Amino acid sequence: MIIMGIDPGIATVGFGLVSYENTKFRFLDCGVIETPAGMRVEKRLSLLYDGMCELIDKYAPDECSVEELFFNSNRKTVINVAQARGVILLAAERHGIDIYEYTPLQVKNSVVGYGHAEKRQVMEMVKLMLDLPGIPKPDDAADALALAVCHAHAGASKLRRLDKLDMARRTGGK
Amino acid sequence: MIIMGIDPGIATVGFGLVSYENTKFRFLDCGVIETPAGMRVEKRLSLLYDGMCELIDKYAPDECSVEELFFNSNRKTVINVAQARGVILLAAERHGIDIYEYTPLQVKNSVVGYGHAEKRQVMEMVKLMLDLPGIPKPDDAADALALAVCHAHAGASKLRRLDKLDMARRTGGK
Repeated sequence: MIIMGIDPGIATVGFGLVSYENTKFRFLDCGVIETPAGMRVEKRLSLLYDGMCELIDKYAPDECSVEELFFNSNRKTVINVAQARGVILLAAERHGIDIYEYTPLQVKNSVVGYGHAEKRQVMEMVKLMLDLPGIPKPDDAADALALAVCHAHAGASKLRRLDKLDMARRTGGK
Repeated sequence: MIIMGIDPGIATVGFGLVSYENTKFRFLDCGVIETPAGMRVEKRLSLLYDGMCELIDKYAPDECSVEELFFNSNRKTVINVAQARGVILLAAERHGIDIYEYTPLQVKNSVVGYGHAEKRQVMEMVKLMLDLPGIPKPDDAADALALAVCHAHAGASKLRRLDKLDMARRTGGK
């Protein structure tokens, strides 16, 4: 399965692509889609949409893991980040990709094992898990990879739960 | 010139289309694009995008007048409304339509003449200006028509300013 992690933004969208098969990760790509600060917002949204479509066409991800956005985020940018996030979700949806959302707390919990982990610890774990030579740059790209790893874990634990249910059903257990 | 007014939302997007030539309005259409409450947000965004594209294909608007969204809007819905607004701007931008944004205060000022007008007064003026048999329903459709009227006025006053500048230039005046 190929998972695309996305850290939404209006100036910078972080992306990270990993393949995850039999509990093994393989790093595919990471980076950022950027839009110029002086450009009108609708043109920036259009650039982001094009960037998303290019990535999807190139890597054909099965599932997309996107950071949740909260009202108490940065007051100055939250409207524009949400507008960008709408366009990102649209690009994934129109390519038939299932979308999953995670909070920063869930990402830390999933990657490091506890929700109040330092950002640095998350980055180190992502580096180890994906067998990377260094911590990915810039931060938005690393955050996006962490989102992809988080979703792989969440999906795997869901599968494990389904297996258990299935086994319980087959054995008549509870 | 054909103007499309848009009142953004996630459950309901109001739209209003008017033609405006030589300071004369002609009502073309108004209504709402709706999405079901229980549906996943990315599917709702996709429905809104399709709805926008259909309207644009049908009426070929030259310019689009969209309500501005503020951080201090309804806390519960502002993220989703902004995501929807992103998709709306994208649809207009990708059809090459120029986008203009107005605050509710600007709309009231433009339609009624002062910014603290009652909603009812705005609706009555829209009805009069567009020569409608009654106040358009629902409210979101009426709000969208008011946005279209507001933009026609703003564009007209901009043209008047340009005319004056042009005349000043031609006559050597200031």
